Amino acid sequence: MAHTIAVIAGDGIGTEVMPEGIRALEAAAKRFNIDLEFSVFEFGSCDYYLEHGKMLPDDWFEQLKDFDALFYGAVGWPEKVPDHISLWGSLLQFRRQFDQYINLRPCKLMPGIKSPLAGREAGDIDFYVVRENTEGEYSSVGGKMFEGTDREVVIQETIMTRTGVDRVLKYAFELAQTRPRKKLTSATKSNGISITMPYWDERVVEMSKGYPEIAVDKFHIDILTANFVLHPDWFDVVVGSNLFGDILSDLGPACTGTIGIAPSANINPEGKFPSLFEPVHGSAPDIAGKGVANPIGQIWSGAMMLEHLGYKEAADAIVTAIEEVLSEGDSQVLTRDVGGQGTTASLGRAIADKL
Amino acid sequence: MAHTIAVIAGDGIGTEVMPEGIRALEAAAKRFNIDLEFSVFEFGSCDYYLEHGKMLPDDWFEQLKDFDALFYGAVGWPEKVPDHISLWGSLLQFRRQFDQYINLRPCKLMPGIKSPLAGREAGDIDFYVVRENTEGEYSSVGGKMFEGTDREVVIQETIMTRTGVDRVLKYAFELAQTRPRKKLTSATKSNGISITMPYWDERVVEMSKGYPEIAVDKFHIDILTANFVLHPDWFDVVVGSNLFGDILSDLGPACTGTIGIAPSANINPEGKFPSLFEPVHGSAPDIAGKGVANPIGQIWSGAMMLEHLGYKEAADAIVTAIEEVLSEGDSQVLTRDVGGQGTTASLGRAIADKL
Ligand SMILES: CC(C)[C@H](C(=O)O)[C@@H](O)C(=O)O
Ligand SMILES: CC(C)[C@H](C(=O)O)[C@@H](O)C(=O)O
Repeated sequence: MAHTIAVIAGDGIGTEVMPEGIRALEAAAKRFNIDLEFSVFEFGSCDYYLEHGKMLPDDWFEQLKDFDALFYGAVGWPEKVPDHISLWGSLLQFRRQFDQYINLRPCKLMPGIKSPLAGREAGDIDFYVVRENTEGEYSSVGGKMFEGTDREVVIQETIMTRTGVDRVLKYAFELAQTRPRKKLTSATKSNGISITMPYWDERVVEMSKGYPEIAVDKFHIDILTANFVLHPDWFDVVVGSNLFGDILSDLGPACTGTIGIAPSANINPEGKFPSLFEPVHGSAPDIAGKGVANPIGQIWSGAMMLEHLGYKEAADAIVTAIEEVLSEGDSQVLTRDVGGQGTTASLGRAIADKL
Repeated sequence: MAHTIAVIAGDGIGTEVMPEGIRALEAAAKRFNIDLEFSVFEFGSCDYYLEHGKMLPDDWFEQLKDFDALFYGAVGWPEKVPDHISLWGSLLQFRRQFDQYINLRPCKLMPGIKSPLAGREAGDIDFYVVRENTEGEYSSVGGKMFEGTDREVVIQETIMTRTGVDRVLKYAFELAQTRPRKKLTSATKSNGISITMPYWDERVVEMSKGYPEIAVDKFHIDILTANFVLHPDWFDVVVGSNLFGDILSDLGPACTGTIGIAPSANINPEGKFPSLFEPVHGSAPDIAGKGVANPIGQIWSGAMMLEHLGYKEAADAIVTAIEEVLSEGDSQVLTRDVGGQGTTASLGRAIADKL
């Protein structure tokens, strides 16, 4: 039976890397005999917004809910639509309405990729950031008072629920259990953020009782970001709230030199709703339209999607193909962010060819 | 007339580095003919808490308010007192009650200090983080509902006021104006945190109108942390909310390899209340009692204090003394965190001797 994939390319380089993501998926599907059926949607982009006055049609939920997965490019183009409108009108809706409460991002030093950190080599850094993806600091609850006066005050609430915190912790503990080092690091800030963060810490302690074989530590977010730079080899699975996870899952790939090529998965683990797979990078208006965007983030996200659909071998094959092409270091093939003079298409094709 | 300095050493290595901070200050005071008068206080430590059931005596405000400055070590010892109690009971009270609304931290690559970033040299990185220090994410407003049940929900409010935001922005713009590059970077997250952060952005735009000669840019906090690692040379003055500033002012010194030696100033710019000067590092229970803590953070904080009191030349002399001792690289003098086998006292004395 075919797996149905909804494709939303979004804005800017999202539309350029998406075809390469699909190319790699089709190559892997052919090799491993997987039946994938892609359906392309135009909504979820700033151009759609300019035409329709909204990012998504009213029935988007109905249109998308029965797909097996969403394959997403990048959204946002601040000159056309302010970010908080484009994001809250699309990506953040999917995460919330489809209850994709896990955001999962690998931070891995890859062969042929230059890390900005001194003396680190491929294999030295290999961890996951597990981010809570539906609540916490990303609430839309709050408001403004005494607007336009000197007394103006703006309030926004961070909201954590036991359900929300426990389920992301559970996922992170389960993930740690599948890894050789069996280590979990919790991001907190309970010394400064005195209500929600001590609660987060409490739930970590509670959850850890069910996983006696996992070594647990915690760091306040300030020193944790420092330790990503100083001791990236310390980490195995790092779990954080929506905001802390967001920060760590950009900083982690920055430390491994993969910020431009890292993938991410927005997962509804129960499979009640489709999960969403997207590169970490944004729509990059500054390089859009030039055909030079690196498609690896999109392709690697496709690998995470295949793994989620149950095809671990095919997923691994894609990651291996990426690593091979990076190791070869052919400057005619590689895009300029990784030291080459190639194009989105040349790099995408080289990876597909390996498959 | 004498400048009165209240000394609070706090916990752990705070009590070990403080004498070296005072030694350097006394040496500089002698050389530059400055009259400093130190008064030592025992409160503000976890041991005080264990004895008195509180971190500070009831009349701490009265006792401290007329000093010209507070010279602070480090507070916190989680095994004795949970961090959110020790910190909210001391340091965070000072910041708030003495309206120290600026937290200022230099991020500077120093000679002889190894940066974890590849290929960066002394002089390459030199910026300030200006952090809002009294409101924002560090509110104590919020609470818990359905406690102890599956429906448990915890809420904490981020509160920004026009007064609070504008005054830190003003300070940051003024600081940028004193620097050759005249560049200001604002930390935001208006694409995800949809009420307070767009407000922050608005105020930056408004404030920038008064400073047409300053080049302003902004980054979302996730990619900003990545850029600290990838492009630390981009930054000159970086301004952020209480939480974002907290993160950036640990990450910045981590990138320059100075996290263990960076200073910070908690400033009430109007001088209505005393300002507070403290090293960035914490009380480090793991190395406390061994006499091996690096005292440079405390000494450098003393330099910031002298500058605040109007003695720029004396402050510069202390920083120069630190740089000289680091450049010489005498392993009998340096503490082990910077590659030596010396002690807190040997390093402190070497710096004082240069003065
Ligand atoms: C100890 C903690 C409450 C404090 C803060 O978050 O402000 C510290 O990290 C700092 O930066 O001074
Ligand atoms: C674009 C933005 C709203 C989003 C987030 O903060 O979640 C992005 O940074 C991400 O990490 O996917």
